[in-house]
Amino acid sequence: MRFFSDNAASVHPQVWEALKAADAPDTAYDGDALSARLDAAFSDLFGVECAALWVATGTAANCLALAAICPPHGGILCHREAHIEIDEGGAPGFYTHGAKLLLVDGEGAKLTPEALATAVAPIRNDVHQVQPHALSLTQATEYGRVHTPAEIATLAAFANERKLGLHIDGARFANAIAHLGCAPIEACKGAATLSFGCVKNGGMNAEALVLFDPALADLVKYRRKRAGHLQSKGRFAAAQLLAMLEGELWLANARAANAAAKEIAAACGARLLHPVEANEIFVSLAPAEAAALRAQGFDFYDWPAPPGNPGAARLVTSWNSNPAHVAALDQAIRTL
Amino acid sequence: MRFFSDNAASVHPQVWEALKAADAPDTAYDGDALSARLDAAFSDLFGVECAALWVATGTAANCLALAAICPPHGGILCHREAHIEIDEGGAPGFYTHGAKLLLVDGEGAKLTPEALATAVAPIRNDVHQVQPHALSLTQATEYGRVHTPAEIATLAAFANERKLGLHIDGARFANAIAHLGCAPIEACKGAATLSFGCVKNGGMNAEALVLFDPALADLVKYRRKRAGHLQSKGRFAAAQLLAMLEGELWLANARAANAAAKEIAAACGARLLHPVEANEIFVSLAPAEAAALRAQGFDFYDWPAPPGNPGAARLVTSWNSNPAHVAALDQAIRTL
Amino acid sequence: MRFFSDNAASVHPQVWEALKAADAPDTAYDGDALSARLDAAFSDLFGVECAALWVATGTAANCLALAAICPPHGGILCHREAHIEIDEGGAPGFYTHGAKLLLVDGEGAKLTPEALATAVAPIRNDVHQVQPHALSLTQATEYGRVHTPAEIATLAAFANERKLGLHIDGARFANAIAHLGCAPIEACKGAATLSFGCVKNGGMNAEALVLFDPALADLVKYRRKRAGHLQSKGRFAAAQLLAMLEGELWLANARAANAAAKEIAAACGARLLHPVEANEIFVSLAPAEAAALRAQGFDFYDWPAPPGNPGAARLVTSWNSNPAHVAALDQAIRTL
Amino acid sequence: MRFFSDNAASVHPQVWEALKAADAPDTAYDGDALSARLDAAFSDLFGVECAALWVATGTAANCLALAAICPPHGGILCHREAHIEIDEGGAPGFYTHGAKLLLVDGEGAKLTPEALATAVAPIRNDVHQVQPHALSLTQATEYGRVHTPAEIATLAAFANERKLGLHIDGARFANAIAHLGCAPIEACKGAATLSFGCVKNGGMNAEALVLFDPALADLVKYRRKRAGHLQSKGRFAAAQLLAMLEGELWLANARAANAAAKEIAAACGARLLHPVEANEIFVSLAPAEAAALRAQGFDFYDWPAPPGNPGAARLVTSWNSNPAHVAALDQAIRTL
Repeated sequence: MRFFSDNAASVHPQVWEALKAADAPDTAYDGDALSARLDAAFSDLFGVECAALWVATGTAANCLALAAICPPHGGILCHREAHIEIDEGGAPGFYTHGAKLLLVDGEGAKLTPEALATAVAPIRNDVHQVQPHALSLTQATEYGRVHTPAEIATLAAFANERKLGLHIDGARFANAIAHLGCAPIEACKGAATLSFGCVKNGGMNAEALVLFDPALADLVKYRRKRAGHLQSKGRFAAAQLLAMLEGELWLANARAANAAAKEIAAACGARLLHPVEANEIFVSLAPAEAAALRAQGFDFYDWPAPPGNPGAARLVTSWNSNPAHVAALDQAIRTL
Repeated sequence: MRFFSDNAASVHPQVWEALKAADAPDTAYDGDALSARLDAAFSDLFGVECAALWVATGTAANCLALAAICPPHGGILCHREAHIEIDEGGAPGFYTHGAKLLLVDGEGAKLTPEALATAVAPIRNDVHQVQPHALSLTQATEYGRVHTPAEIATLAAFANERKLGLHIDGARFANAIAHLGCAPIEACKGAATLSFGCVKNGGMNAEALVLFDPALADLVKYRRKRAGHLQSKGRFAAAQLLAMLEGELWLANARAANAAAKEIAAACGARLLHPVEANEIFVSLAPAEAAALRAQGFDFYDWPAPPGNPGAARLVTSWNSNPAHVAALDQAIRTL
Repeated sequence: MRFFSDNAASVHPQVWEALKAADAPDTAYDGDALSARLDAAFSDLFGVECAALWVATGTAANCLALAAICPPHGGILCHREAHIEIDEGGAPGFYTHGAKLLLVDGEGAKLTPEALATAVAPIRNDVHQVQPHALSLTQATEYGRVHTPAEIATLAAFANERKLGLHIDGARFANAIAHLGCAPIEACKGAATLSFGCVKNGGMNAEALVLFDPALADLVKYRRKRAGHLQSKGRFAAAQLLAMLEGELWLANARAANAAAKEIAAACGARLLHPVEANEIFVSLAPAEAAALRAQGFDFYDWPAPPGNPGAARLVTSWNSNPAHVAALDQAIRTL
Repeated sequence: MRFFSDNAASVHPQVWEALKAADAPDTAYDGDALSARLDAAFSDLFGVECAALWVATGTAANCLALAAICPPHGGILCHREAHIEIDEGGAPGFYTHGAKLLLVDGEGAKLTPEALATAVAPIRNDVHQVQPHALSLTQATEYGRVHTPAEIATLAAFANERKLGLHIDGARFANAIAHLGCAPIEACKGAATLSFGCVKNGGMNAEALVLFDPALADLVKYRRKRAGHLQSKGRFAAAQLLAMLEGELWLANARAANAAAKEIAAACGARLLHPVEANEIFVSLAPAEAAALRAQGFDFYDWPAPPGNPGAARLVTSWNSNPAHVAALDQAIRTL
């Protein structure tokens, strides 16, 4: 019973169908009919004109975006526990040619204008110090927290005032929107770029990089090729993304994952270390308790325990989390 | 009737089956059971201990390999018309952090020790000039030519003598081996790294980067992650490669493509600009003739015409080139 | 009366003489007789075989060193307030092609094995996280503190155990040795590379990059050229360094600066924020007090005040700090 | 008797005086009074508003300029024998983060719109090929040839039409202007950036990077720091440049070098391989003749011999070429 992560879940049947339907040869790279539909499909989704490119991974999407909005000598404000800082193997440094991540504190890996202001305050405005050029936030965050549209607006205002390009790492953007119940654009107003996650939400190996400034597309396409991310049978990547948007599958999948998480959260009660707003549950869990759960067949990651906790764990649900497994987990947690 | 390229062909049914079979969740990234089998599968194939990593594109495979064998301040000897020089959007410069491609002449995009010696002769051995650290050859070449094992041996000796790491861009390695009929290892003895093509040969979006020095694997795995090429559902990439090796599907597919090319070559006669050894046919073709073929429904690329020719075209066959289309093309060419 | 920094002081007369003496043409770049003497001169100084290269700035020396001991995908442990992190405009990211600085806490910008262990503890040993490959310490530190030979030994042991290359940023190495009174090698045992400062100690525009592993010299020479730091009249850079070593001028100059700092420190008494071991004095100073000193003609930098202090300032002495100015400053501080 | 190169000649007495006059401490880096005068001094020289920054080497000047006008994924058109391609150890690749030099043919290392058009013709306008973003020419060229204002205008028009940033490597710009006898601006109209040589013309270790678009200065200053080229006693670099401009010393020095070259050229007669327009003389010279000259005490570089010549040599004069040595060389050549 896997609660490790959503990033290895099965591929959704509609995605499989779309992949099969894309098998007939078409123009290579992104010259095919499916890839050609992406800009319009995402412009429809967001209600504004944007460009959308497929890439194979969220790391590639994030880093192509960052390289488009931050020069090599610049800095990118992000949370101290942001995926780009912690879990991408230094990829931002590679793609941006050495730009620096400028780390910001914040509860639940969320950013606030206050925390950002504190982070930039000591930076002297001279060539000896790396100046911020971009701001990256994660939606939902690495702790499954969601920035509200109002919060996003204050962050966008901060970025706009200082001429920082705003990027949103939306590996779990679907879960955030499912939680917020708002129009997708409401949760990314003011952003220049968005990594729109698909793999964690029922895809196989395609993410969308959405460029709210379509003028960036030319640059990013050259950079995508230069990074070895321009697949020759790109139609299979486009097919996955289009399948996700078709009939709002992306939202349906996210809602299912979120609902499973809510259910588990209810069982966790006071153990919860963070409010559960998306599909991740962080719980206080003593080592013996973790062992007891594992002995019953539940798999999950241990997590660094915050002060005052005997241990901690991360539980993640997926678009297809097995209801029986979820119920069993609930029961097991309640009876710890 | 498509003779554009093999890089957009359909996916082989056995690859589809393998993809579907890989759907059940497994450990993310390359921690799954399929990825774990790659080293052994390729070691078996080559009869020597090697490591094998999946990546999404040939450009990524080539460039990860080059970065592993050439430092940022070094140079890489390659043919003037090599794919890494002409068609990868500067990706080698990105991955190697600015290493330089040192261009070599050679008929049919093949390399010879003599041509290499001519290329390195003017390079002074001082810090003002970029020194060669690596040698990259393409097998089969960009003109569908194949280096024989004996030729490879002389190139490997050249590399070895000068302490150059030897890379083989094998986007069409299968077609080369199908042509040579030798053990795969015979066509890459002395190489440090090999991009083993799969996408052009019936795959969807996976290539293998083979490291004949397994000690390079640790480095390359960090670089793959850093380049955003470590997919979380990597099992689907591994599945494609294993399907290709299973029952020598890779060779069967290449033989089919080569056979179709041979058939077309026979129809071309004196029009042939290069001997046809793999699955590419380069023909002298006047613009009016090209137009006539296109009017009959044949699609293909125009190619820069060598001196003395009114025009030229490139025709490429695939693992599943339609025999009826091939026969029709033969007929059409003969009656030009 | 300047106490801003030692980095803009006048050039020592013996350095001027050496510059003039180097005026006659000689082989360009580092092929001249003076440059040729550097390896031997520094090997004599340290009593071990080493290579020494001139560069124009400490930033270049530090970053060429870091690039020699850390791969692009690696990390470099250093203090949170290290010059390479705070004041080099992101140069380490440029020279290393994106390697990451991994920040460590420590009083007075000093490092300890305990603080290093705390910093590396959360780094998982997998490709998703940047692994430490190097360790950089500053001697004397950015707060004018000096690591003792015993402390250096524990840091070198930490580095050695984890196979980290050890670099010492010795912009004020002379001041450290003048303080310690030990043989220079005692303060850098186990280091792979040392930036040996000269500009802050009476030089014009030359620093020495000392390579305790002379086998690194070939690599670093290519990188120096590639960074545009190979001056054609390199003899003028070599002349400065040789003048510094001649008759231990480097130590004499550092002793003079340290003595002036000690004198000022005595006047500061309880205002001192850090023990004064080199030529920098950090003092608690209220804004009105700072204004009062400036009104008397003293120039210096304000510094971020530690908690509990109304303000702070940094005072720096030089090889030629005017005794009358120093005495006047003493008096002015005592009478605040 | 040295005719190796102008790059190792003595420093001019007026430069020495300016260096000594700059000894008093001033604000560090480029905050000093001398550095502050550079923009105005060069704006006066060119009669247009420009920014000017000191750097230590021509390679640094060239590469900072190229990085300012070409993105990492772009290409820079330059002559096949340009210094940036042949003699800078790959520095352009380092500074531009992997941009590619796109090589152009041309007699005497000069560029023409025709040759440029030939070079760009085969470049497809797609992401698979590196697109030209900049154009770099050398004035005077690596063969001592000078582009006339009219020629520069045609090259600038070519660049402007294709939106290429135009850079001029003016390591010997002074010699070119001395030859042309025109206003300096006439020889660089349309350029975005100019490396204004000083070291080869009597300086010690400073070159000027002139930015005809002053808006580039902010970017370039960050990049200069990031490359370790921001010297803390920058006043010494500024002093050299200002001394060069003072009373047109730069032109006087260049005229002297050119005159010596003309004298030698007259002695060479039919041996000349290129017209002598600056301070370099390329001559056909058999090995035995070269040996004979060396036996008489003349030092110079052998050069690759063009077809039909038994050998070749490069002779370079300097601002202070000894008239007696020049006369002796003349005599020696005439009596070969």
